[in-house]
Amino acid sequence: MQNRQITIAELPTGTLGPEHFTLGETAKPEPKKGEVLLRVILMSIDAANRSWMKGATYRAAVQAGDPMPTYAICEVIDANGTHLSNGDIVAAEATWSEYVTAKARKVQPMPKVATLSHLMSVYGIAGKTAFHGLMSIGNPMAGETVLVSAAAGSVGGYVGQIAKALGCRVVGIAGGPDKCKWVVDELGFDACVDYREAGLSRALAVACPDGADIYFDNVGGKVLESSLNVMNEKGRVICCGAISQYDTENPTGPRNLPGVIVVKRLKMEGFIVMDFAHNDAKCVRAMQHWVGTGQIKVIEDIVDGLENAPKALIGLLNGDNKGKRLVRVAADPT
Amino acid sequence: MQNRQITIAELPTGTLGPEHFTLGETAKPEPKKGEVLLRVILMSIDAANRSWMKGATYRAAVQAGDPMPTYAICEVIDANGTHLSNGDIVAAEATWSEYVTAKARKVQPMPKVATLSHLMSVYGIAGKTAFHGLMSIGNPMAGETVLVSAAAGSVGGYVGQIAKALGCRVVGIAGGPDKCKWVVDELGFDACVDYREAGLSRALAVACPDGADIYFDNVGGKVLESSLNVMNEKGRVICCGAISQYDTENPTGPRNLPGVIVVKRLKMEGFIVMDFAHNDAKCVRAMQHWVGTGQIKVIEDIVDGLENAPKALIGLLNGDNKGKRLVRVAADPT
Repeated sequence: MQNRQITIAELPTGTLGPEHFTLGETAKPEPKKGEVLLRVILMSIDAANRSWMKGATYRAAVQAGDPMPTYAICEVIDANGTHLSNGDIVAAEATWSEYVTAKARKVQPMPKVATLSHLMSVYGIAGKTAFHGLMSIGNPMAGETVLVSAAAGSVGGYVGQIAKALGCRVVGIAGGPDKCKWVVDELGFDACVDYREAGLSRALAVACPDGADIYFDNVGGKVLESSLNVMNEKGRVICCGAISQYDTENPTGPRNLPGVIVVKRLKMEGFIVMDFAHNDAKCVRAMQHWVGTGQIKVIEDIVDGLENAPKALIGLLNGDNKGKRLVRVAADPT
Repeated sequence: MQNRQITIAELPTGTLGPEHFTLGETAKPEPKKGEVLLRVILMSIDAANRSWMKGATYRAAVQAGDPMPTYAICEVIDANGTHLSNGDIVAAEATWSEYVTAKARKVQPMPKVATLSHLMSVYGIAGKTAFHGLMSIGNPMAGETVLVSAAAGSVGGYVGQIAKALGCRVVGIAGGPDKCKWVVDELGFDACVDYREAGLSRALAVACPDGADIYFDNVGGKVLESSLNVMNEKGRVICCGAISQYDTENPTGPRNLPGVIVVKRLKMEGFIVMDFAHNDAKCVRAMQHWVGTGQIKVIEDIVDGLENAPKALIGLLNGDNKGKRLVRVAADPT
C-alpha cells in the first residue's frame, strides 16, 4: 500500500513557491517496536513551517529531500502492542503524508470531541497560543486597549475575542478591506486597520484614541514599528511571530527601537506556546466557557487534500486565510 | 551681577557640533515667591541631553534659544524665606548656567558628603540607573553572564561592577583598545569586546562561551543587534539608552527582531531611573556597602568650566569619557 507524501524539493532563498515542493509516493511506513502507525487526518498549516525552512528556530532546520514536518491530528491504525489502541485520536509531530509512524510515548491522546478540527483551532495550538501569550505576558485588564496584528489569522482572531471577553477595547490590523470588515463584523473587534493602506501610523493613532496598552505582534517589520509608536507608557508587546520576516532575505528592524522602549518603558517579550503547557488545562477550560457563552466564535479555514498543502502554506504567507488554516488529509473517522 | 549661560543656537539635524551652542550672559535671575536662588556646582552630562534636542522623550523637547536643561548639584545662596537654608546642597533641574532659580519644593536636599561629585556618580543618577535597571529588570543570579555596552561609560561601569559583586561573569563592550583594557584592568570585568573592530558577533560569541543571560543596552543599533544573537533562552535585555541612535537622522533597527525574541523567548524592557525612586534608599545602601568593601570603584570624568559643557557633551556622544561625565561650574563649598 502506498503513502502519498510531500517533500521539500529545494530550500527557498527568497519567496516560497510551489516549485519548492514535490508530491511523491513511498511505501506505507512500518512501525518499529514502541511505535504506532498513524493515519493523518488534519495538518496544522503555520507560518512557522516557513521559518523551519530558514533554520535557527526552536527546532532543527528542515533540509531538501525531507518531508515537511507538521503538527497533526491522527488516528491510530496500528497500535503495535503499545499502550494505545486502534482508533485512538492523537496529536503528533507528523509530516505532510497520509501515514506516519511515531513513538507511542511521544504522541498526545486527544479527548473525544464532535469535530476534530476544534482540537487544532479553538482548543488547539491557535487558541492556546492566543490565550497563553495574551494572559501570561500581556496581563490584560478591562478598559485597556489591545492591538493585534494578523487579526484575521488563526491566533490574532482569538487574541481579540479573548480580550473583548475580558472587557478590553480591541483594535485589529489586517490586510485588505474584506478581512478588516470580517474582523469587525464577525469577530466583534472595535476597529480594524488595513496595513496595506498608506499612513499606517496615523490610522493606528485614529483607531487607538487612548493609545494601546498591549500589542500582540504576529508579523514584525513595519507593522511592529508603527505599532510601537501608539503604545502607552508601560505597554506590553507580546512577540508571537514575525510572519512578514520569514519569507524574505532582507528583514528590516523597527527603526524606532530601542529608543521607544526606553522612553515609554515598554516590555517586549517572546514566547512559544509549549512554554506554557502547564497551563493548557486552564486555557481549554476558559475557552470552553467563552465558546459556551458565544463570546468566542470558532474560526477555521480548512483546505481539502494533502496535495494542496503547499498552496495552503504559500497562501497563508500571503495572508489569504481567515482563521486557523488546516489541511484535511482524511475524513474524521465515524 | 552677571550670569553666564549656554543656550541652544539651533537644533541639530545631524551630528551635534559646537556651532549648535552659544555662550552668553544674562542678568542673575531673581527668585520669585516660593523659589530659591541656586549656584550651580556640578552638571550631569548625559546622552539624554542630546535626545532632548530631538523631542519625543519623557520630557518636553528643548528649542533653539533655550538654555540646555541639566540635572545639577547646587548650593542654595538665597533661600528667599522658603523651608531651605542658605548653604544647603540640593539636586535640581537646572540649566547650563552659573545661577538658576527653582521652586523650593521641587529641589531635592542632598545629604552631607565629603565629595559632592559622588552624589552624581556612584550615589547619583549613574549608580542608580545601573542598580535599578540591572536589579529590577535583569534579576541577575550568580553564575549568569551579564553583557554590558558602553562599559566604560558612567552607567555601564557600575552595571558591570555590581554584577561582579553578585557573582556573575561580566563581559563589557566598549570603543577602542584603551577603554577595553581599562574596563578589564580597572573595573574588573572578565572580558571586554571592542565594537569598533570587525566581526562583533563573533567576538561576542568568543567572549561569552556560555551565551549571555542579561544584556544591559546603553547604545542600541548594531551593537544591540549583535548582542541579541548571543543571548540565551529566557534572556533579559535591559533597554537603558540608545546613544548610537541619538546623534543621527538615520536610525537602524535590529534586523533580527522580533524573530530572535520569539525563538529565544527574550524579554526586552525599558526603564527610566525615576521609575524606581521608591527604591533609591535601598540602592544607595547597597552601593555604600560595595564601595566600602572595595568591590565598586567610583568612576568619574570631570570637565572643568561651564564654557566646556558643549565640548563635554559632544565628546560623550563620541564616547571619549571613562566613567560618569560631569562639568564643574563652581568649586565645592568649603
